[in-house]
Amino acid sequence: MKIALLNGPNLDRLGKREPEIYGSTTLEELEVKLRTLAYSLKKELLAFQSNHEGELIDQIYKWADDPQIIGIIFNPGAFTHTSIALRDAISGSGKRFVEVHISNIYRREEFRHKSLTAPVSDGVISGLGLFGYEAALRYFAQ
Amino acid sequence: MKIALLNGPNLDRLGKREPEIYGSTTLEELEVKLRTLAYSLKKELLAFQSNHEGELIDQIYKWADDPQIIGIIFNPGAFTHTSIALRDAISGSGKRFVEVHISNIYRREEFRHKSLTAPVSDGVISGLGLFGYEAALRYFAQ
Amino acid sequence: MKIALLNGPNLDRLGKREPEIYGSTTLEELEVKLRTLAYSLKKELLAFQSNHEGELIDQIYKWADDPQIIGIIFNPGAFTHTSIALRDAISGSGKRFVEVHISNIYRREEFRHKSLTAPVSDGVISGLGLFGYEAALRYFAQ
Amino acid sequence: MKIALLNGPNLDRLGKREPEIYGSTTLEELEVKLRTLAYSLKKELLAFQSNHEGELIDQIYKWADDPQIIGIIFNPGAFTHTSIALRDAISGSGKRFVEVHISNIYRREEFRHKSLTAPVSDGVISGLGLFGYEAALRYFAQ
Amino acid sequence: MKIALLNGPNLDRLGKREPEIYGSTTLEELEVKLRTLAYSLKKELLAFQSNHEGELIDQIYKWADDPQIIGIIFNPGAFTHTSIALRDAISGSGKRFVEVHISNIYRREEFRHKSLTAPVSDGVISGLGLFGYEAALRYFAQ
Amino acid sequence: MKIALLNGPNLDRLGKREPEIYGSTTLEELEVKLRTLAYSLKKELLAFQSNHEGELIDQIYKWADDPQIIGIIFNPGAFTHTSIALRDAISGSGKRFVEVHISNIYRREEFRHKSLTAPVSDGVISGLGLFGYEAALRYFAQ
Amino acid sequence: MKIALLNGPNLDRLGKREPEIYGSTTLEELEVKLRTLAYSLKKELLAFQSNHEGELIDQIYKWADDPQIIGIIFNPGAFTHTSIALRDAISGSGKRFVEVHISNIYRREEFRHKSLTAPVSDGVISGLGLFGYEAALRYFAQ
Amino acid sequence: MKIALLNGPNLDRLGKREPEIYGSTTLEELEVKLRTLAYSLKKELLAFQSNHEGELIDQIYKWADDPQIIGIIFNPGAFTHTSIALRDAISGSGKRFVEVHISNIYRREEFRHKSLTAPVSDGVISGLGLFGYEAALRYFAQ
Amino acid sequence: MKIALLNGPNLDRLGKREPEIYGSTTLEELEVKLRTLAYSLKKELLAFQSNHEGELIDQIYKWADDPQIIGIIFNPGAFTHTSIALRDAISGSGKRFVEVHISNIYRREEFRHKSLTAPVSDGVISGLGLFGYEAALRYFAQ
Amino acid sequence: MKIALLNGPNLDRLGKREPEIYGSTTLEELEVKLRTLAYSLKKELLAFQSNHEGELIDQIYKWADDPQIIGIIFNPGAFTHTSIALRDAISGSGKRFVEVHISNIYRREEFRHKSLTAPVSDGVISGLGLFGYEAALRYFAQ
Amino acid sequence: MKIALLNGPNLDRLGKREPEIYGSTTLEELEVKLRTLAYSLKKELLAFQSNHEGELIDQIYKWADDPQIIGIIFNPGAFTHTSIALRDAISGSGKRFVEVHISNIYRREEFRHKSLTAPVSDGVISGLGLFGYEAALRYFAQ
Amino acid sequence: MKIALLNGPNLDRLGKREPEIYGSTTLEELEVKLRTLAYSLKKELLAFQSNHEGELIDQIYKWADDPQIIGIIFNPGAFTHTSIALRDAISGSGKRFVEVHISNIYRREEFRHKSLTAPVSDGVISGLGLFGYEAALRYFAQ
Repeated sequence: MKIALLNGPNLDRLGKREPEIYGSTTLEELEVKLRTLAYSLKKELLAFQSNHEGELIDQIYKWADDPQIIGIIFNPGAFTHTSIALRDAISGSGKRFVEVHISNIYRREEFRHKSLTAPVSDGVISGLGLFGYEAALRYFAQ
Repeated sequence: MKIALLNGPNLDRLGKREPEIYGSTTLEELEVKLRTLAYSLKKELLAFQSNHEGELIDQIYKWADDPQIIGIIFNPGAFTHTSIALRDAISGSGKRFVEVHISNIYRREEFRHKSLTAPVSDGVISGLGLFGYEAALRYFAQ
Repeated sequence: MKIALLNGPNLDRLGKREPEIYGSTTLEELEVKLRTLAYSLKKELLAFQSNHEGELIDQIYKWADDPQIIGIIFNPGAFTHTSIALRDAISGSGKRFVEVHISNIYRREEFRHKSLTAPVSDGVISGLGLFGYEAALRYFAQ
Repeated sequence: MKIALLNGPNLDRLGKREPEIYGSTTLEELEVKLRTLAYSLKKELLAFQSNHEGELIDQIYKWADDPQIIGIIFNPGAFTHTSIALRDAISGSGKRFVEVHISNIYRREEFRHKSLTAPVSDGVISGLGLFGYEAALRYFAQ
Repeated sequence: MKIALLNGPNLDRLGKREPEIYGSTTLEELEVKLRTLAYSLKKELLAFQSNHEGELIDQIYKWADDPQIIGIIFNPGAFTHTSIALRDAISGSGKRFVEVHISNIYRREEFRHKSLTAPVSDGVISGLGLFGYEAALRYFAQ
Repeated sequence: MKIALLNGPNLDRLGKREPEIYGSTTLEELEVKLRTLAYSLKKELLAFQSNHEGELIDQIYKWADDPQIIGIIFNPGAFTHTSIALRDAISGSGKRFVEVHISNIYRREEFRHKSLTAPVSDGVISGLGLFGYEAALRYFAQ
Repeated sequence: MKIALLNGPNLDRLGKREPEIYGSTTLEELEVKLRTLAYSLKKELLAFQSNHEGELIDQIYKWADDPQIIGIIFNPGAFTHTSIALRDAISGSGKRFVEVHISNIYRREEFRHKSLTAPVSDGVISGLGLFGYEAALRYFAQ
Repeated sequence: MKIALLNGPNLDRLGKREPEIYGSTTLEELEVKLRTLAYSLKKELLAFQSNHEGELIDQIYKWADDPQIIGIIFNPGAFTHTSIALRDAISGSGKRFVEVHISNIYRREEFRHKSLTAPVSDGVISGLGLFGYEAALRYFAQ
Repeated sequence: MKIALLNGPNLDRLGKREPEIYGSTTLEELEVKLRTLAYSLKKELLAFQSNHEGELIDQIYKWADDPQIIGIIFNPGAFTHTSIALRDAISGSGKRFVEVHISNIYRREEFRHKSLTAPVSDGVISGLGLFGYEAALRYFAQ
Repeated sequence: MKIALLNGPNLDRLGKREPEIYGSTTLEELEVKLRTLAYSLKKELLAFQSNHEGELIDQIYKWADDPQIIGIIFNPGAFTHTSIALRDAISGSGKRFVEVHISNIYRREEFRHKSLTAPVSDGVISGLGLFGYEAALRYFAQ
Repeated sequence: MKIALLNGPNLDRLGKREPEIYGSTTLEELEVKLRTLAYSLKKELLAFQSNHEGELIDQIYKWADDPQIIGIIFNPGAFTHTSIALRDAISGSGKRFVEVHISNIYRREEFRHKSLTAPVSDGVISGLGLFGYEAALRYFAQ
Repeated sequence: MKIALLNGPNLDRLGKREPEIYGSTTLEELEVKLRTLAYSLKKELLAFQSNHEGELIDQIYKWADDPQIIGIIFNPGAFTHTSIALRDAISGSGKRFVEVHISNIYRREEFRHKSLTAPVSDGVISGLGLFGYEAALRYFAQ
């Protein structure tokens, strides 16, 4: 069984962009760490990142057609608050999603408090740093 | 003379995604059906679909330069409600548009009730299923 | 089988009131045109117009009791935006409705953008001029 | 070191109230389960539940004075959306909090979408069922 | 030292789209003009345009890694009003930005009055036509 | 002494329209039932129904001039939420009103939650089915 | 030349309904008074009152076809704040209107502060009692 | 069979607090009166009042476990407008509720117009004074 | 007896500023015209204009102390929509006011639709051009 | 004569909680200080604090029955912004209240700017630190 | 050391304007009273009043340059709710301010509930009549 | 030809007030600097500053009558957000305006984000410090 990891815009800069908010671990290091954890839980981890809304939609549909994927961990970044198209792709994919945010979105600007993608996901983990990805992985691995 | 058909995000999944809302006809089947109807009305049908807002804008401008195109049937999907860039492309193209929605947007979530693209189109057909595309085609063929 | 045509307030002035927006065809001419089209589609067309909200409700219930009527084409005019009573009559009638607006309501004042009657109709055609009535007729005739 | 578990109004009915939303595990069973997990992570678990806002505030301040408590897992229930007094107690306590909701608050009524307590907590886990408590426990145990 | 010029959606149509609003100078002509001015101020000008939000983000990060770039002149077009992802890229890039709009955004539709990108830029020049680009260039060249 | 019963739009369809919400008792049967109850309380019951806002206003003023009428039981239907003219007629009539709704208006669409007529009535009974009319009758008969 | 006087809902009760707000002059007395004044200004006065929105629309269109009418004095009563249909009739009639309110609408409930009919009238006189009708008459007689 | 009566904050002052609004009957007198009426209808009446939200929740759950209780008459006082926790207790209790307000909440401050508890109750009686409690009792006794 | 005429900001430019909206009569000519009319009605006219809010307040209080002034005709210009201080001066003066606007404020920007000063005036005349001043004068002269 | 001091939620932590905002004086020290001041003004001071809304209401009613109490100094803490029940208790008590806030509520989050209790109090003192309590005491002692 | 007293628009009418709200003490009497109190507290009192926003700003800057002034007592009157310019002058002056309102602003129209000047002042005293000025004076004299 | 420079409230304190936001250049130094630049561009610079809205309006009209003035550089300060009267003076003057803000208004409080004067100006320069004045000068000098 596989679990997929999808990261949206600006997350390719993880560890480089505003480290005081997001920490100094890079996206590559995060993926390695999660792959190892997945392996210890007898799961394979697939990973994809893009700054392009359209590529994220295309990727969701590619994964939608893979019956071995049991869940998708998704940090939609800024698209959380603006993309109805991603919301439609999530609900159209037939897959289960957990939404992850590294920082606590309730501590930031008001326009980051609402999520268009959360209502079509199983749930949301926000503000627990990179630990949030781990928790989401364990959730699907259960 | 030609009529163009433009479909936005998630419409490549037509017939696969949530068939209880959108029916089981695929996008390919729809395009064939409309091409046939266009032909019977002595028109050529051009078709394009993308999940990428940027590609839709680029395509509109390509068609904008083709003087044989008399109208564009556009289902902007979720971009209807969020894309000012597409609105600008429509009004910048100098072409006439009819906006089509398969489902009745007034029956869905409130954020789907308003349309950014409708005010720069000739009009809107919403909720009549795939028949809406046919009606839009006949409108331009008149 | 029959199809009914219901026109709301101010539509008796069609062809006379603000022709630059609504064209110069009168309501009588429109009804003749649609009756002819219905006939060619093997349907009978019934038509009624009133400036009185109460008379429109009464008429909907009269038609509700006629099992031969397969659909009602309704241009509620200004009542689209204000009449919950008509909305209740539509959903109480058990009939299918298509809402038609001659002009593009999204191009007009903001209070004309929302529709109280659309959520209880099959769909809406807006901005395609008198062609909208024709399309609605074909929709029911299918 | 200790971790504290605080449950707000209506959570004493867990397993009894609306099991189709909240599951059939009772609060007592949940506390046993989490105590066992805490033990395996070399932590002691303290637990308290009340339907009284005042008692929850009083309890937070009791725990605030216990330097061995490293974090508080808090499901404020309905008070999430209405209690500024609890928000003040959280920020006045000097302790770290993780907010947990069993159901996905973004799938419910709009007044449940915003949280008064989240901005003064480390983060929020919502919609992952009872697993959310476990993840919060692991977060503090790290 | 270099100054970068970034143009967002629909600006490739400059001089062709709605010339009564935007004038008849094309984007190529504008770039030549600004390159000459930059040269006279002992600066090199880099330029990029895209209708794709993702490509604009990718480009910002490419420029973010070039220490010779002292400032970025950015006309985000319609993305000004909708793209939190671009806002995040601006603040994540560590570069200084000046936002430029050719037309006076306060004279247009209300949804164009607010800017998501302005709060993370040094400032905004709006409504001074192509002169706005020149002023922004001089600002960085000081 | 007399008590009057006034029913607004769509209530002539009681027992026929959406019986799963409104039950299967017809308006005629309801009037008979209430007349009998009034009789047992030594009161005469007058009844009127119309789908026309104007007729309801005219009727209120007719009753306003009858000094024997001690109270008016009014179900304004959809006019509850839209008719300032009826509100003015109520307060202009000098009579006491009790507003009755068969279904619980707080369980329905948000635009049905507020009442324009309630502030000029003695009170409101909502959601208790046809029992609400009975209770209103007893209220005036006290 | 003729001037028309149109009074909307509840104004048939003038002098009887809430005299502390509206005074004790009846509608009949007002019409006599205005007819006399019109006569002294060499004009004929036509008058109509209804509590039915539909009848007011019908009447406006009847007067619209009379080229001798130079202006219509209209007190739309409560319809001022709710009737888009009357607004459409005013602008569709091709006649000039002056809107009159006996009481000062800015001193009453907030929902009476805005007027749907005022933007399509020449102007509004509010709060000057019955003198407002006289002033409107003189305005057209000029 | 039993019917329960629950009164919220400030209702212990009934007959003492603002008698010009609430009358001079005390809570004790009301309970005696209702107990007598219940008895005449072959029902037992249980009664509880508290100014503490938590105690009201606790009491609802005590009654929830008593299968003989067929309905709960609830005047939540000010909690009507602020307590989501009580709403959750009502819907979690599995019992039927009728909400009663002595005064007409639509005549008071705007923040008293909406009810958080009404949508999970059978219905609401507001503004009929103490008669409202009697009507609610009869409703359950039917 | 005297009647006072108070004109606010920008009205010193009457006849010069935007004559297509305000006509070509200057303020001086208007004052002469009104003085003549006042004289014919056996009244004296006092007049004052200022672009300074403070001077208008000071003037109101000067007139407040003159018992011969029976009413003040006030065109507050833009201060209508922004000046609570003028509102306080009006209600503090103990004088009666009629508010006059030359253009129809309901036809202009939405922020001109509400009036802070109207609720403390007898009434408002808007959109009748300079005739509005005359009507206000006659109103006080009655 | 007596003056009462009522402190709401979180004020038992005064001097301990966020001393940079609230200072280091404890509630006990404050009460001693105010008791001394009251004594010097020939008044007795009663004091009560609770984190429980219900206990605050109960206490208000206890004091309401003591005719020697001439005024109540009340810092409702967070309940200022959320408790309609306390507002009702204040207005139901028949006592005069002065509301005190130690910090300037206008400098804090927007939801702290409005007060539900202030409109039923004599007045409010906010932002003057503990001096505010003293001033309120002197106000009642006058 | 000196304390300054600044009074805004309409306060020159204190004791004359609406005495039922503001009492019968005149501004001159108030200034004398406060000067005496200041003297007893070993402070000098400076006083200024104007109905002109510009003069108030000018005066604040004059006082800003006087290092002996330790605080400014400011009743901005209606400018409290409308003047950002005064807010800027307060924060630009480097002086400490206490805002005073004679009446309880929370009991008046909703537009008087918010204060633009309060967030840049130390605090606010509202509703305690002229005593509020005294308390503010003692606050600075401490 | 001449260019005029108009500065609104608080700008006389430039260089003295909050230098961390506005820098340490005084208004006099700024005017000298701009006069020199104007001279080098063959233009004469006129300058005026006031804290009085009325004086700014008066000045605009003085300049309106000077045909040699080709443009007005205007920093309306806080009046940007509150003064409709200045907006009217700008549009009534027949002159072209460029609005300048020293700080980036989008980075400050939300009430500073909208501008009443911008829609009647050519454009806006915000956040570029004193350079903004220079750019505006060059704009008119072109």
